[in-house]
Amino acid sequence: MADPFILKAGTGIALALPARACMTVTNIYGQQVVDTWALCASDTSEVLSMEHTRSSLDKLRPCVGDDLYSNRRRPVLNLAKDTSPGVHDTLLSACDEARYRLLGFQGKHASCAENFFAALRELGIDAPRVPSPWNLFENVQIGDDGKLTIEPPVSRPGDHLVIRTLVDVIMVFSACPMDIALTNGIDRRPKDIRLHVS
Amino acid sequence: MADPFILKAGTGIALALPARACMTVTNIYGQQVVDTWALCASDTSEVLSMEHTRSSLDKLRPCVGDDLYSNRRRPVLNLAKDTSPGVHDTLLSACDEARYRLLGFQGKHASCAENFFAALRELGIDAPRVPSPWNLFENVQIGDDGKLTIEPPVSRPGDHLVIRTLVDVIMVFSACPMDIALTNGIDRRPKDIRLHVS
Repeated sequence: MADPFILKAGTGIALALPARACMTVTNIYGQQVVDTWALCASDTSEVLSMEHTRSSLDKLRPCVGDDLYSNRRRPVLNLAKDTSPGVHDTLLSACDEARYRLLGFQGKHASCAENFFAALRELGIDAPRVPSPWNLFENVQIGDDGKLTIEPPVSRPGDHLVIRTLVDVIMVFSACPMDIALTNGIDRRPKDIRLHVS
Repeated sequence: MADPFILKAGTGIALALPARACMTVTNIYGQQVVDTWALCASDTSEVLSMEHTRSSLDKLRPCVGDDLYSNRRRPVLNLAKDTSPGVHDTLLSACDEARYRLLGFQGKHASCAENFFAALRELGIDAPRVPSPWNLFENVQIGDDGKLTIEPPVSRPGDHLVIRTLVDVIMVFSACPMDIALTNGIDRRPKDIRLHVS
């Protein structure tokens, strides 16, 4: 992988990283959501889990300094830095073909679910399912009645997160191809993301 | 299974049900959380998914009349009736041994995760993981800062839900054995639940 690497709009990538690596995810235009997953390299059935992270932190979303937990309740990532306002989603599933059909789209559409599977296949990993993603920069507002609304990201051009790996992991990133909901801004246009490993 | 069936405090059960069955879950004492899962009988890797349900409904939690979705975004259950105030959780993971250790408990403790695996083994099903549960009657409050707080259930003695199956499923219920957090009321004492199939 070139470094820094430009993750093209609507595409995904999987990266095998050792423990104590730092991954910088930069929202070049400020308005792009990045679905993010981590699978433990020692056993890829152990995965970053949004529900175990929420339960272990007693928080809806991790903040700077927080560890993120696997489905075996082990800390696997740490959110080391975040220059954005900290609005990231842990509630919504990755978009998939069925999601686009429910939104009224006919035909074939790229999706984060498909990007997840395809990126892992590039590394020879045949994943059985899509874990619940950590949706970086996704702005999901919760109404008093529990209504969820996807609003444009509040992040600014150049905002970035640094994610530190605590174990050997396969990281998967998808620059979300959503062009119907407001996920990727009011222009509903997917954009590139910059990734940098150190 | 006797019908109605008393699910003893802290234990779990798995039930194979055809499509169009109705399951009544009664909170006898009003203060007991029931971790609930559904696996599709035709392929048990297709499971009730909290993140797909939230995404498909645009709601934090299903309300009366709503369908609940699988990880393949198919409607698999319907919440047909709810006499309680409708406070059920979709955010937190099932309790497991690691959760009790994080809460300071030493030694062996019953857990919803273990109940899930044990109940399915009774039906000859070896589940690879614990899906994110639908935590009936669990009262998780979200603070303005995203802080999650487990408070005593707001359901009353005799409150009940009717869940309708839309496909052939294996339902799993665990009367949560939590006795440290306020999950099961201010007395922190797990209680029995009544199940009835029709």
